[in-house]
Amino acid sequence: MTDRIAVIPGDGIGKEVVPVAVKVLDAVGDFVFEYAEAGDETRAQTGSALPEETRELAAAADATLFGAAGETAADVILPLREAVGSFANVRPARAYPGVDALHPETDLVFVRENTEGVYAGIESEITESVRTLTRVTTDAASQRIAEFGFDYAAENGYDVTIAHKANVMRRTDGLFLDGVAAVADERGADYETALMDALAMHLVMDPSDYGVVICPNLAGDVLSDLAAGLVGGLGLLPSANVGPDRALFEPVHGTAPDIAGEGVANPVATVLSAAMCCEYLGYDAAGERVRGAVLEVLADGPRTPDLGGDATTEDVERSIVDRL
Amino acid sequence: MTDRIAVIPGDGIGKEVVPVAVKVLDAVGDFVFEYAEAGDETRAQTGSALPEETRELAAAADATLFGAAGETAADVILPLREAVGSFANVRPARAYPGVDALHPETDLVFVRENTEGVYAGIESEITESVRTLTRVTTDAASQRIAEFGFDYAAENGYDVTIAHKANVMRRTDGLFLDGVAAVADERGADYETALMDALAMHLVMDPSDYGVVICPNLAGDVLSDLAAGLVGGLGLLPSANVGPDRALFEPVHGTAPDIAGEGVANPVATVLSAAMCCEYLGYDAAGERVRGAVLEVLADGPRTPDLGGDATTEDVERSIVDRL
Ligand SMILES: CC(C)[C@H](C(=O)O)[C@@H](O)C(=O)O
Ligand SMILES: CC(C)[C@H](C(=O)O)[C@@H](O)C(=O)O
Repeated sequence: MTDRIAVIPGDGIGKEVVPVAVKVLDAVGDFVFEYAEAGDETRAQTGSALPEETRELAAAADATLFGAAGETAADVILPLREAVGSFANVRPARAYPGVDALHPETDLVFVRENTEGVYAGIESEITESVRTLTRVTTDAASQRIAEFGFDYAAENGYDVTIAHKANVMRRTDGLFLDGVAAVADERGADYETALMDALAMHLVMDPSDYGVVICPNLAGDVLSDLAAGLVGGLGLLPSANVGPDRALFEPVHGTAPDIAGEGVANPVATVLSAAMCCEYLGYDAAGERVRGAVLEVLADGPRTPDLGGDATTEDVERSIVDRL
Repeated sequence: MTDRIAVIPGDGIGKEVVPVAVKVLDAVGDFVFEYAEAGDETRAQTGSALPEETRELAAAADATLFGAAGETAADVILPLREAVGSFANVRPARAYPGVDALHPETDLVFVRENTEGVYAGIESEITESVRTLTRVTTDAASQRIAEFGFDYAAENGYDVTIAHKANVMRRTDGLFLDGVAAVADERGADYETALMDALAMHLVMDPSDYGVVICPNLAGDVLSDLAAGLVGGLGLLPSANVGPDRALFEPVHGTAPDIAGEGVANPVATVLSAAMCCEYLGYDAAGERVRGAVLEVLADGPRTPDLGGDATTEDVERSIVDRL
């Protein structure tokens, strides 16, 4: 059966890079694309940043490709992640030949727990000037992200580090750490643990010591953006939000209002997200072809201004599609 | 009146670097030093990582100089910060001439709120496998750190960035952001705001865009360690935990068990913390002298192995003290 992919370009450069990924997917596979709207503009027009039909489309499609949303980002992406049942947010941060990186040997994959922590937070106004947020950690979610992370690491040949701040968040991050470690021990898998603050420093100084990093939700948010900085910026980082039956793919970057509309957005992060989508849907060879084409273009093809070139989004698109 | 400084070397290299800072303080001022114990060894001997007399000494002294503690770090440093009434944790991260840094123009000062957020957290075991941590944010603490941060920035000529994650922690980090911004607006001071994830990336790519960064507690913990990575590691980063009547000074680094006892620990972070201590106590000229001596030694004096040299702690000590 033909896979159905929901396509939600969103705002800003989302509208410019998502069509490139669609063209790439079309070139390597047989997919049905169904379009839907979300984001700041959608809110201005309809009153809701994430209309119910968009949510339903994502909840029913085999996979969703999302671009970016502006101010409404959290109102769009968090419910969409929930709609696809995502529990694992996978964020590879690799240095690519031909792209300036602080550490050319960087090859990291953040496996971010995607349902709990402060993101499951219930906020309360105790008085007008005293507020609380209640962060949630469960053994079930910790073990589930661990299963996913250790599978991914074993399949792709990575070492595993568990990030945490259990010296301060003793019972909650302690539960996370114990839950992840229990899965590792059951499998006889090796791992290291790292305090998230110390890890931030070590990643900056020598990322080659790390491979898969299994993280609580907010730690994964911050550390993966940090890693984007190591390898040339958000223009290159894809991500997958993986659930048991469906998944959502999105570049890690935002709407880039400073360059939106100029036709010079870097489509690589979104095209690499499309490659992850192919693999998720079972088309490993197609995923590899896309990634291979992107790597060639990064090495010697046209570059958008964020990578120091003067190519347009269209130049990069043509160059990738030509190689498929 | 002679200022009383409580001295708590702690564990590991804390015992090696704190004496250097004491010698330096002795060379530039007239202080009374009172020693106390804390840390892993103290716990092994007394059953408590932070004996009551140590806490009381810090709570009564004009300033406290702390080294590092091992596994018990959180049990020692968090109550000590509270004992001195610290509400602002000040962490300069500067690139120094002569020391390899990813970005030689880095000159950052993290002003970290030091009483709330997850650190004020109440953790609960809802069931054995479901736990919560309740993060606290108040308007009072947000305004207090803002007053401190904007004063510091104005006195030292820095721009201000407010770090937050108010797109997810809307009411709590929203209150922090509003509280800090309200202080800025009252003063007519300029500032930028930055999401802590995006800021992590930007700091890695171009820290020269930033000066003083006012942060919630955990954000400050992670971002300041990240910044240590930018300027050559924790061996160089001093910090001050400032309260209204007293303060505690400590290197940002830990006990470094891998090199503890070998006499090669880098004392610079602790000596720079001592310089901050001089300034806090009102001896600006002494603080400047110490910092000047350290800068000269970093530029062309002996270096410990963490900076690529083969000098001992004692070599560096002698070289600093000789210049005072
Ligand atoms: C927009 C925001 C809610 C989101 C997050 O915090 O997860 C973003 O930063 C990301 O990492 O995808
Ligand atoms: C030891 C730990 C409790 C402490 C903190 O989280 O504040 C440390 O990481 C620091 O930054 O001084």
